[in-house]
Amino acid sequence: MSDALVPILQTIVGAEQVLQGDGLDSYEVDWRKRYRGRALAVVRPGQADEVAAVVRACAAAGVPIVPQGGNTGLVGGGVPDDSGRQVLMSLTRLNGIRQIDADNLTMTVEAGCVLQAVQQEADAHDLLFPLSLAAEGSCTIGGNLASNAGGTQVLRYGNARELCLGLEVVTPQGELWSALSGLRKNNTGYDLRDLFIGSEGTLGIITAATLKLFPRPASTVTALAACESVEAAVRLLGLARRRLGADLTGFELMQRFALSLVAQHFPQLPQPLPTAPWTVLIETGGTAAESEERERMSAVLESAMEEGDVSDAVVASSLAQSQGLWHLRESIPLAQSQEGLNIKHDISLPVSDIAGFVERMAATLAQAAPGSRIVCFGHLGDGNLHYNLQAPAGAAAADFLARHESRINQLVYDEVQRLGGSFSAEHGIGALKRDELARRGSAVGVRMMRAIKDALDPTGIMNPGRVV
Amino acid sequence: MSDALVPILQTIVGAEQVLQGDGLDSYEVDWRKRYRGRALAVVRPGQADEVAAVVRACAAAGVPIVPQGGNTGLVGGGVPDDSGRQVLMSLTRLNGIRQIDADNLTMTVEAGCVLQAVQQEADAHDLLFPLSLAAEGSCTIGGNLASNAGGTQVLRYGNARELCLGLEVVTPQGELWSALSGLRKNNTGYDLRDLFIGSEGTLGIITAATLKLFPRPASTVTALAACESVEAAVRLLGLARRRLGADLTGFELMQRFALSLVAQHFPQLPQPLPTAPWTVLIETGGTAAESEERERMSAVLESAMEEGDVSDAVVASSLAQSQGLWHLRESIPLAQSQEGLNIKHDISLPVSDIAGFVERMAATLAQAAPGSRIVCFGHLGDGNLHYNLQAPAGAAAADFLARHESRINQLVYDEVQRLGGSFSAEHGIGALKRDELARRGSAVGVRMMRAIKDALDPTGIMNPGRVV
Repeated sequence: MSDALVPILQTIVGAEQVLQGDGLDSYEVDWRKRYRGRALAVVRPGQADEVAAVVRACAAAGVPIVPQGGNTGLVGGGVPDDSGRQVLMSLTRLNGIRQIDADNLTMTVEAGCVLQAVQQEADAHDLLFPLSLAAEGSCTIGGNLASNAGGTQVLRYGNARELCLGLEVVTPQGELWSALSGLRKNNTGYDLRDLFIGSEGTLGIITAATLKLFPRPASTVTALAACESVEAAVRLLGLARRRLGADLTGFELMQRFALSLVAQHFPQLPQPLPTAPWTVLIETGGTAAESEERERMSAVLESAMEEGDVSDAVVASSLAQSQGLWHLRESIPLAQSQEGLNIKHDISLPVSDIAGFVERMAATLAQAAPGSRIVCFGHLGDGNLHYNLQAPAGAAAADFLARHESRINQLVYDEVQRLGGSFSAEHGIGALKRDELARRGSAVGVRMMRAIKDALDPTGIMNPGRVV
Repeated sequence: MSDALVPILQTIVGAEQVLQGDGLDSYEVDWRKRYRGRALAVVRPGQADEVAAVVRACAAAGVPIVPQGGNTGLVGGGVPDDSGRQVLMSLTRLNGIRQIDADNLTMTVEAGCVLQAVQQEADAHDLLFPLSLAAEGSCTIGGNLASNAGGTQVLRYGNARELCLGLEVVTPQGELWSALSGLRKNNTGYDLRDLFIGSEGTLGIITAATLKLFPRPASTVTALAACESVEAAVRLLGLARRRLGADLTGFELMQRFALSLVAQHFPQLPQPLPTAPWTVLIETGGTAAESEERERMSAVLESAMEEGDVSDAVVASSLAQSQGLWHLRESIPLAQSQEGLNIKHDISLPVSDIAGFVERMAATLAQAAPGSRIVCFGHLGDGNLHYNLQAPAGAAAADFLARHESRINQLVYDEVQRLGGSFSAEHGIGALKRDELARRGSAVGVRMMRAIKDALDPTGIMNPGRVV
């Protein structure tokens, strides 16, 4: 059956949009080069009805489909396996902006739009689409929704889920479900929208979405603060929430070693504060004039200094300075790569448990992997830590990973689970964490997920081997 | 089988918590007295494991279960049918506050907690649980979540859905799914939480929830503004959003006739503005001092007056005045009842389409039901209108409804559907709008809902005849 499929696909999308053979690494290899597959064909539909027709053709042939956006996922959810029997559907040609409704503060875009293009289109209308993350220059909004992306402004605006009002989806049967509603209130049956969001292409293919927009804040103010302990940073977070309200848009935590890696590998980046056990990046976006917003920020930091929770602080006085502070934060993963292979964890915890977790985990890991170096940073405001581990200084990183990775994952995830946290805060399950979900997820919950998968995709053609 | 069930239920919850016979109107008749049923028994479990045991017993006996919270629903979703063969499960005894975590800004409560009790508990910790609606003195949080309640602060804080981080649910098989996570980011498989939220008890029974809390705003300011047209009110909304940002918490619209009914039936309520075609109630909740917040509100209203969008305005100068303004808004449904039976619609539209809808619909209804009086008010900030119709002055209301209701529903919902709006914005489907969903919902969407229902509740014992 699958031999006969390719000509059918060529008829649907045009021969030049069905790619086969070598040189397809950008589709078949994931961004971190951990997953390398081989597709029966790469198909690039340009319209939603082409997506539907491709799905019907694949369903008739019994050929599984792996949907892909910008191929920036971190859990191997968007590349084919190595069987050569899966169709890789790239959504990047489906990249139209269908509508902007300024009065309704909504925007309808196709799945293959690059996140940055969505942000820019909103900006051109003096509006804000607040989803923001490292891969925004190449990830697509469809992929952001399929994986319920998080990023740096979740504290104020929520995850991708909270930023989406309506969807258009092609079902595993190749039907088009049109629900591109721009409504803030709509209680007409089960919440299919949120079921597709975060389902990583295993229940259907998102082809378009209606997104929430916001008025663009009049002024953005960024600051760095030095804290002696996680407890102090958590108290600063509480103070900032009370005093800045909804204007608080970002609250990032960086441990000393994370910033020292940045200093080592990117010495040209200025680090305006003396080194401290913990450094916090705070950002606000408000409606008042910039000078006023800056005064509010300074007042919060002064109060925290009086309370002894902040030892030193600096408020950026220009856009360039503000970008410099973010650059420090965003350079941590790159500095880690420069330092060598490492073990990554994308975890979340109740904010109230983070200090205890950090302290206990450091002791546990010092014993389990002596000399290993913890790189801890992340979105404290959302309880989301990137809790990573480098090999001991001078040790061979590959050997270290081979010997320790699975045991360290277990230690970290066990403690996270004990505290009611999540072993995948914003990256999703994909192929990488599917066993972890089966092992650590609630048995009742996983059984319900499986029942839903079987109900909506009974032949299992949508992104098999991912999530459940 | 069902005869043998009652003694089993008595063993599970205690004989005194299984009610039978007459005098059960408060459980068997809905709040608006449109649905009057008869239960096999009313069962009042006091703990989640009792809920699970009751469900297992009913499942074994093949007896359907109707879950009920405060019995304040408006669509007949929470009362038994008249067969005498359904068990009514009242959740009101399950009303413990399990935990407050101030650092994490979360609160875990049992399903039977009255909404007002949840608000008060948050308030006692200097925190805010923002869900707020007319029935808050008797509705329960479990019912709010099962129906994804909306209310007056959706504009800023979202619907019940957006205020819930985790759930505990008893499945139709009587298993307990514990997912009381207080996490802001958690991407570990399908979003079962949002599937249960808004499913109106047809997929399982919510027994507890972890809710989002917020810092309590330092100051709340309320104002009334008179507008000549809906277009002007929509422009005022845009201005308020830009200038007040996230501090804008409420934006309610009231047509002249709605307020004149209040004046007629509640003449003791002061109406501080001269009568105008449209009156808007605006509320802000900010972090600045009250005088400063009041100045910001006044500045916005002055700008709108300069633009010609507001003809007159008043800013409340005390809490009592502010409550007085809300009292006007909240008295509209009561004034309507005093005026006589009426036809109600709970609709939502893109904000940009509301002015056109109001204009066209008035012309349509003037022709279809001459002399009928439109009572239009609602949450303009969310695009949610309560668009109701009174009989002509002096006409017999019951006759008017008998003759016109179904035709008028069709006219209103047809136009709403044409504009991509919703025929149930915040009240849900229940029994009342089940046919409407089958008729007006997307066929693909309704088929997916049915597949999910069959997958999770294959024997159909959970609240049958509701939603799908």
